[in-house]
Amino acid sequence: MLKLYYSPGSCALASRIALEEADAPYELVRLDFSKSEQRGADYLKINPKGRVPALSTDRGVLTENPAILAYIAQSFPAAKLAPLDDAFAFGQVQAFNAYLAATVHVAHAHGPRGSRWADDPAAIAEMKRKVPETVAACFELIEEALPQGGWVMGGQYTICDPYLFTIASWLESDGVDVTRFPKVLDHRNRMAERPAVKKAQAI
Amino acid sequence: MLKLYYSPGSCALASRIALEEADAPYELVRLDFSKSEQRGADYLKINPKGRVPALSTDRGVLTENPAILAYIAQSFPAAKLAPLDDAFAFGQVQAFNAYLAATVHVAHAHGPRGSRWADDPAAIAEMKRKVPETVAACFELIEEALPQGGWVMGGQYTICDPYLFTIASWLESDGVDVTRFPKVLDHRNRMAERPAVKKAQAI
Repeated sequence: MLKLYYSPGSCALASRIALEEADAPYELVRLDFSKSEQRGADYLKINPKGRVPALSTDRGVLTENPAILAYIAQSFPAAKLAPLDDAFAFGQVQAFNAYLAATVHVAHAHGPRGSRWADDPAAIAEMKRKVPETVAACFELIEEALPQGGWVMGGQYTICDPYLFTIASWLESDGVDVTRFPKVLDHRNRMAERPAVKKAQAI
Repeated sequence: MLKLYYSPGSCALASRIALEEADAPYELVRLDFSKSEQRGADYLKINPKGRVPALSTDRGVLTENPAILAYIAQSFPAAKLAPLDDAFAFGQVQAFNAYLAATVHVAHAHGPRGSRWADDPAAIAEMKRKVPETVAACFELIEEALPQGGWVMGGQYTICDPYLFTIASWLESDGVDVTRFPKVLDHRNRMAERPAVKKAQAI
């Protein structure tokens, strides 16, 4: 049985939604970040990086949202969560998710997790101050690229959608004026209505 | 014909090596970062993010190393650059590359590109000061996971290898004591001997 290690409010929500969309059998293992359980010896055996999500499978553990999301799409092809037979279209899905992981999530992380990249409290405060600007710059590109009324890749719902939904749910706490991004907001609202998303957000 | 937009010294080297390994026909388009060509109007039409690499195909443009690398592996299956028929093994490849993109490259970028996340010069200097520590912490995990004498994924050379090689080539300029990472160094030395790598590194 698949086992998803997650913590509430984290980006692991993206992988959890994809598991729900795929109707995959899985167990949830909740880590309490307030108790630093993600840095505990037991969890570091599962994911030495001390981060979530991690997906334990009967072959071993996978980490990193873009990898887990593609794995779910490939393992449950009936759910049609990615264009698996079209290298270019799959590449577009992957490019979007890689951008979310390596640029958008990173821009966000300079708010709550600035101590990853600096020790001086003044530098950490300065990073936090710039977060609304850097996150908004990312979402300008996303807003521009997002189709009107559809999903990230157009008509077909893919593994890009839960990942965008997850990171877009942080916009208000990142200090971004969300009214600048009507297509992102509309996407977020339509995502929130999906049964898989409601189930993934329940405790 | 594929067209790879790159700049010397950038992470686009990873995609260029993979194209060489795949024996793919491609053209190179060199961007001069010292003239900010990656922020010019012409290039922003190709990649609105203003970054490299970008791979132009007859279907459109792909961006982000993890996406381009997987696309090359899928488009040139005879080169066997990824375990395409094994979702878990492919997921391991993707998890490694996602870690390089979203954590290791990001740790490095706080040296040369701190202005992405802060404006205050003192904060930018503080980020730069911490780079040797954060990059070394990433490479401790990579050194631990790297097989002795093989490639990143074991016996089979994959799209993880050119990407690791590219980022590991920055270790000295990141101020990291490379002697702490003998397996990474050995990997780098063996990569440097491959004809595809020599060709990709030539002007």
